[in-house]
Amino acid sequence: MEKMWSGRFSAGSSNLLDQFNASIMFDRKLYREDIEGSLAHAQMLAKQGILTADELSQITQGLTQVKEEIESGLFEWKISDEDLHMGIEKRLTAIIGDAGKKLHTARSRNDQIAVDFRRYVLRKNLEIVDAIKLLMQEILVVASKHTETLIPGMTHLQHAQPVNFAFHLGAYLSMFKRDIERFESSHARNNVSPLGCAALAGTPHKIDRDMTAQLLGFDSVSVNCLDTVSDRDFALEILFSISTMMMHISRLSEELVMWSSYEFKFVELSDEYSTGSSIMPQKKNPDVPELLRGKTGRVYGSLMGLLTVMKALPLAYNKDTQEDKEGVFDAVETAEISLEILKEAIKTMQVKEQNMNSACKVGHLSATDLADYLVQKCDIPFREAHFITGKAVAKSEELKIDLSDIELKYLQEIDKRIGEDVLEFLSIDNSMNARTSAGGTSTQRTKEQLEYFRNFLKEK
Amino acid sequence: MEKMWSGRFSAGSSNLLDQFNASIMFDRKLYREDIEGSLAHAQMLAKQGILTADELSQITQGLTQVKEEIESGLFEWKISDEDLHMGIEKRLTAIIGDAGKKLHTARSRNDQIAVDFRRYVLRKNLEIVDAIKLLMQEILVVASKHTETLIPGMTHLQHAQPVNFAFHLGAYLSMFKRDIERFESSHARNNVSPLGCAALAGTPHKIDRDMTAQLLGFDSVSVNCLDTVSDRDFALEILFSISTMMMHISRLSEELVMWSSYEFKFVELSDEYSTGSSIMPQKKNPDVPELLRGKTGRVYGSLMGLLTVMKALPLAYNKDTQEDKEGVFDAVETAEISLEILKEAIKTMQVKEQNMNSACKVGHLSATDLADYLVQKCDIPFREAHFITGKAVAKSEELKIDLSDIELKYLQEIDKRIGEDVLEFLSIDNSMNARTSAGGTSTQRTKEQLEYFRNFLKEK
Amino acid sequence: MEKMWSGRFSAGSSNLLDQFNASIMFDRKLYREDIEGSLAHAQMLAKQGILTADELSQITQGLTQVKEEIESGLFEWKISDEDLHMGIEKRLTAIIGDAGKKLHTARSRNDQIAVDFRRYVLRKNLEIVDAIKLLMQEILVVASKHTETLIPGMTHLQHAQPVNFAFHLGAYLSMFKRDIERFESSHARNNVSPLGCAALAGTPHKIDRDMTAQLLGFDSVSVNCLDTVSDRDFALEILFSISTMMMHISRLSEELVMWSSYEFKFVELSDEYSTGSSIMPQKKNPDVPELLRGKTGRVYGSLMGLLTVMKALPLAYNKDTQEDKEGVFDAVETAEISLEILKEAIKTMQVKEQNMNSACKVGHLSATDLADYLVQKCDIPFREAHFITGKAVAKSEELKIDLSDIELKYLQEIDKRIGEDVLEFLSIDNSMNARTSAGGTSTQRTKEQLEYFRNFLKEK
Amino acid sequence: MEKMWSGRFSAGSSNLLDQFNASIMFDRKLYREDIEGSLAHAQMLAKQGILTADELSQITQGLTQVKEEIESGLFEWKISDEDLHMGIEKRLTAIIGDAGKKLHTARSRNDQIAVDFRRYVLRKNLEIVDAIKLLMQEILVVASKHTETLIPGMTHLQHAQPVNFAFHLGAYLSMFKRDIERFESSHARNNVSPLGCAALAGTPHKIDRDMTAQLLGFDSVSVNCLDTVSDRDFALEILFSISTMMMHISRLSEELVMWSSYEFKFVELSDEYSTGSSIMPQKKNPDVPELLRGKTGRVYGSLMGLLTVMKALPLAYNKDTQEDKEGVFDAVETAEISLEILKEAIKTMQVKEQNMNSACKVGHLSATDLADYLVQKCDIPFREAHFITGKAVAKSEELKIDLSDIELKYLQEIDKRIGEDVLEFLSIDNSMNARTSAGGTSTQRTKEQLEYFRNFLKEK
Repeated sequence: MEKMWSGRFSAGSSNLLDQFNASIMFDRKLYREDIEGSLAHAQMLAKQGILTADELSQITQGLTQVKEEIESGLFEWKISDEDLHMGIEKRLTAIIGDAGKKLHTARSRNDQIAVDFRRYVLRKNLEIVDAIKLLMQEILVVASKHTETLIPGMTHLQHAQPVNFAFHLGAYLSMFKRDIERFESSHARNNVSPLGCAALAGTPHKIDRDMTAQLLGFDSVSVNCLDTVSDRDFALEILFSISTMMMHISRLSEELVMWSSYEFKFVELSDEYSTGSSIMPQKKNPDVPELLRGKTGRVYGSLMGLLTVMKALPLAYNKDTQEDKEGVFDAVETAEISLEILKEAIKTMQVKEQNMNSACKVGHLSATDLADYLVQKCDIPFREAHFITGKAVAKSEELKIDLSDIELKYLQEIDKRIGEDVLEFLSIDNSMNARTSAGGTSTQRTKEQLEYFRNFLKEK
Repeated sequence: MEKMWSGRFSAGSSNLLDQFNASIMFDRKLYREDIEGSLAHAQMLAKQGILTADELSQITQGLTQVKEEIESGLFEWKISDEDLHMGIEKRLTAIIGDAGKKLHTARSRNDQIAVDFRRYVLRKNLEIVDAIKLLMQEILVVASKHTETLIPGMTHLQHAQPVNFAFHLGAYLSMFKRDIERFESSHARNNVSPLGCAALAGTPHKIDRDMTAQLLGFDSVSVNCLDTVSDRDFALEILFSISTMMMHISRLSEELVMWSSYEFKFVELSDEYSTGSSIMPQKKNPDVPELLRGKTGRVYGSLMGLLTVMKALPLAYNKDTQEDKEGVFDAVETAEISLEILKEAIKTMQVKEQNMNSACKVGHLSATDLADYLVQKCDIPFREAHFITGKAVAKSEELKIDLSDIELKYLQEIDKRIGEDVLEFLSIDNSMNARTSAGGTSTQRTKEQLEYFRNFLKEK
Repeated sequence: MEKMWSGRFSAGSSNLLDQFNASIMFDRKLYREDIEGSLAHAQMLAKQGILTADELSQITQGLTQVKEEIESGLFEWKISDEDLHMGIEKRLTAIIGDAGKKLHTARSRNDQIAVDFRRYVLRKNLEIVDAIKLLMQEILVVASKHTETLIPGMTHLQHAQPVNFAFHLGAYLSMFKRDIERFESSHARNNVSPLGCAALAGTPHKIDRDMTAQLLGFDSVSVNCLDTVSDRDFALEILFSISTMMMHISRLSEELVMWSSYEFKFVELSDEYSTGSSIMPQKKNPDVPELLRGKTGRVYGSLMGLLTVMKALPLAYNKDTQEDKEGVFDAVETAEISLEILKEAIKTMQVKEQNMNSACKVGHLSATDLADYLVQKCDIPFREAHFITGKAVAKSEELKIDLSDIELKYLQEIDKRIGEDVLEFLSIDNSMNARTSAGGTSTQRTKEQLEYFRNFLKEK
Repeated sequence: MEKMWSGRFSAGSSNLLDQFNASIMFDRKLYREDIEGSLAHAQMLAKQGILTADELSQITQGLTQVKEEIESGLFEWKISDEDLHMGIEKRLTAIIGDAGKKLHTARSRNDQIAVDFRRYVLRKNLEIVDAIKLLMQEILVVASKHTETLIPGMTHLQHAQPVNFAFHLGAYLSMFKRDIERFESSHARNNVSPLGCAALAGTPHKIDRDMTAQLLGFDSVSVNCLDTVSDRDFALEILFSISTMMMHISRLSEELVMWSSYEFKFVELSDEYSTGSSIMPQKKNPDVPELLRGKTGRVYGSLMGLLTVMKALPLAYNKDTQEDKEGVFDAVETAEISLEILKEAIKTMQVKEQNMNSACKVGHLSATDLADYLVQKCDIPFREAHFITGKAVAKSEELKIDLSDIELKYLQEIDKRIGEDVLEFLSIDNSMNARTSAGGTSTQRTKEQLEYFRNFLKEK
């Protein structure tokens, strides 16, 4: 195939090479960024007197036409064009002639792709933030209804202390808030224009990088061109931010799967977001959280893939970095659909409050409260109180009851310092509401936390 | 959407769920395996009297028609059909009616996908072996011409000892031979039929698993159905085998890139397998080995992705495992095109023997030979010989010559035990041919190695 | 510091370099392999007339003394000695003088470490196999007692079909059997002697590689020395084999953690293998399976680490490969203690049969059996049978009973083709035992499977 | 072994469990953070009236003594104490009696380790920033001397355009600046106190979390306790920040290794930071950059390891997370020594200006300048100019000269629009200095960039 760069080549490239080498079949996703970048570059060239007003006008019309052709499906993407830049440039030149050829003055495909890909990633950071906020809002709706719904707080998957369900969901609100902060921080750090770096060393043409940066919404221009054309930190960062977010989602998904089991029955996903079995007619499967959990793997894989690609690459551009895009595209799309479907699944799921509450009567959830009673009311050092409580729990198990139901006499057999006022401490309801320290689970504290997240979402 | 399993569901699944959940857009790649699996299952059901001869005949005709529709592009893949099994079954039933519904007797989608995916992976293990052999043959062709072409053997990217280029290529033949052995070993270990495991526990129907195993080319049937429906070891193995192979390819690629540089100029890739620059007209870029090196990342990523998916999954089938396929498909296709294009690049590259040979006159490549001389001819312990040689090298650097060109008098100034017979040891040509130990670089030994690999390829 | 190789260096290495560069603090773990390798090399040199009998005798005595010093803790490991080879050689020379210096004839540290590390890895492959067998035996002991203990077979963590607990454990026996096969296959593939490859190209000395291979227990000698000194496939393979094994262990651990929860209560780990909480006296935490599950991460990390190290390394030896050992050591030791503690935890855990059995009365586990009844007895196509069963399940839920307890009249309301003989099909006990296909869960089939694994362990 | 939590356990834990489970042998590294955390907690308890002034005084003295014992090596770390918290608490109680037991009031090991580990990670973020700055300063020293030293700017490892060496180093200054920003951003985002979260739900004791936060240098207190005890985002972030930094270091290392080769000879590492070969006396090996490159793998591995650990963990604390520390410790220590040794290696390396400059006369580095000439002076569209230049390059190769040495007549044969003024454009010196666009390589622009980085370092 005849290529733009074929001047000194005696033989054309092979079809096999075209197929192996071409990025056009996936980087065409960046057509919008590419055309916007070209328009900004052309305006700048015109302002600098490198293009005439007429040439600018032709280029603007031509690129507008190309964009329309792409969006209407008329544009023909050809593997022999290698990449979207060449595909668009060729079509532009076919439409407007020589002026199209002048557009490439003072730039290189290296900085074109640097601009296109960076702008895509920057935009996606913000779009994902918006999608997380929608999810958080839905979680807040559910949480608001359940600030008094008891659920066993667990460590080691063992009943530990009673909390309320809103407080439990608040943990995920905290995680998603940190996710937002990571995406935003990455956006701010990387919102730097690469345009004008040319191949690797800048250009002798009298360009105005500040102007194109401003036109394209960048905060500033990059400091060193050699770095700029080979920098993929912004791509690694979004892969890491998505990986961490998917990790959080995988934790919530794990809980949703367990909570949907016959053993827990804490929630029931709606029919709309469940599936059945082709062989077992009674099954209602929580496919959504399972698949969300599984999709964590592909995102981790993309992060590891790009870290591997970048390892030990000499400066500046190497073809290896073409491998940066597919993994990022896949991770971004995984993030987007994951956030949306998780939002819907949570919105439509049924919370089985009664089951959550009953589960709190199993596992001696007020044991810590007994220990706290011993410390606060009987002035017993915590470590000793812990030991006494252990004996009370053992007694309850022997009696096959929950500690919250134990009779005073049994407690006093274990330690006679225990008074009648202990019973209040043993109540599960009281236990949850007693935890009033900052960040604690009491209904009052939980409501403050929900308010905190509501404000966070409002301020943004 | 109305689903096969919707009997007890009051609401249909959402479009968003369909989009998120469906695997049909990628697992349709397995249509051949799926139809073959169904044909084998139907034949077995007929033999066992579960299907009538007439039903078998209808099913066979129906499936044949479905296959033709798929291969001619007439088949309509619908995301609402969830997966290829449902897509094919629905079409079959539309064509032949009730007999199509009976085909699902005594099996589940869980074992259908287990059969389809395993057979795909098993087949690809063998096809990749074939592609490696073709690459090895091409390397052998090049190597055969260069058993006397000197090239600096390097450690730490420093000239170490002279070797011949065929010997250097022999290192890669060794790696690719091990790759073949890994793919074949994995094939043998996993060639076990899952068909007949049904959902997870086997079936009360009187099926004959041995018969379907034989029809589908498996060596045996799996021992425990619960394991079988959740086993993805075979998929992890092919990802690991490909990762290791791509690692080997990345090493050769790294060398090809360096050898193509102005600094080395040891090889020149053909125009057909090189590309140019859109801004720098003089450039001839080794895109092929660069991209091969980069593609290592995506394969590592797929391995890490599936390891992540499988971590801590309870038995038996979970939807998470649907994430096994895309990574494997991508890795397999990456392996296939990588092997092919590497073969072509090697076949068409120009080996610059003269440059390789001249490079051997730089870096005191016969220093070890001087040390060996001191040990063998002067009976000096190796460690002392090493020290004396270090001084001779320092002297050569002072004189700005290569050690192979040093005059006897300088050596005798350093150690008077050195005699005239040392000069023969210092010759680069002699140095390479002196290494006659098993596996060594002498031309004779190298020829034996090439013969060894030729025989390995023949025997297979 | 003065180094063995310092002949041509005008300045010594810095302390910082020594600290950064030295491997002696971790590779000393290979002292046994190193000394055995040296002894074999010395015997061969003596046979070939390169060492005198007297020198051999001195070296043998010297190395024996060094080994004793190491094992008694008297040996002083010094970071300035860089690696164990240098540390041992220096001490040897200090003990026996010049003969020690001659030991390094015809070999290099590159092939020394290649021998040492490969032999360590080969040995560990087999030792891990032995440890897996001990674990499998313990699982077989537990399984043998529970071939009639019903437990809900799950998919999607939803009750699916009843199986017996021995059958469930049989899935893990299958996984561990494949693990054994992988370790053994890797051992066989890599049991090839690197000794005699010298720096990278072989040696002019008249060595006998077959002799040292035999002395050290290798099956054959490596074919190409350049490959041999840079080959780390055997290390990647053991990391992959351990990763896959830990993945299996993480699945069993996930189940043990869930089964230990109040919600499941299927097992109770012994006090000896549980821990408590410093703040919650009632807690009994399944730390062992949790930590086993967590340790999967570090092993995956080591695999990914070495894959990264090896990516794009040019031939032959590069210092980067020094990074191969710590990850492998850590993974091997993780594997060893994990297998041992899992064995003990399983041996001492209490299986709560009653809870497992009762759980089978929840979730309409015999729904598939009803569908099978409709197919077998009423000649209804499976897909239609599935639909009818869905309605029966919905009716049961409406009645708040399990399908196994539904009255005939309700079934006949749904489809009047259903006869009285359906009730036998609905029994949970019958359901498990009905699955008599090969690999199925019926008690009889399960017993055969256990016998199969017993024979597998015996034959090895 | 008798444990703090053993109240209800009938059997003690096994030695094997102690060995498997204990973290004390690695988490003791956090003793300083742990004691500081306890002191802050005690002060707060006293202020709140939970401890008496006398108890606080005893605890303060006791903890001070424990710290001294640890730092003087007298403290006995015992595996049976499980973790550093227990080890320290036991010793404290041994020293001061009952007051020691009261210290554990209103807190749990879960928030103790959360405080300790978070504070360690936060501190290390800042310490690594300091170490990066020292490295950047050393790079600036070298760069300042080489703003006019020509070196071939490369893409695809092919000579592309001439740049100066300071500009090349400026690319790494840009990368390390981003690294600093990432560490600092992570510090700011995570500087939130976990102390007071107790086991998972807060505490009924009247604690003052703001006070302990302030005492320990945190900016604020965490919002939701359930999240806090299971949050490991800060640990993932430092692993990612170090991974990205090591990736940058691996790129510089790759270049240092290549530049040290006989083929490049652009730099020579000092003897102090090089090593020799035990078998090849002439070798001078760039072990430092090789090992730096290799160490990238272990850090990637630790990142992947912790991502794996965290995947799908239900809330709140699970023992799996104990696996967070060793990988972080290893990565931090790797980062610290890597930054230090790289700084020293760069400080002491010899830059071979002459070789760099001569290399610029190879590879037609001014080809882009010829194209630019055609655009600027002859008003030829860039694409056509590119094509004409390709022909000029081909002609130069035919003449076996560099394009910068071609005679005018040959150029005019190719295109007669070319005038005499072209020769100035073809000069390599001019070529570098012509690139005066923002971020470009001209000496003037490069000096501005160095000034920019100097100011960045000053401001911090």
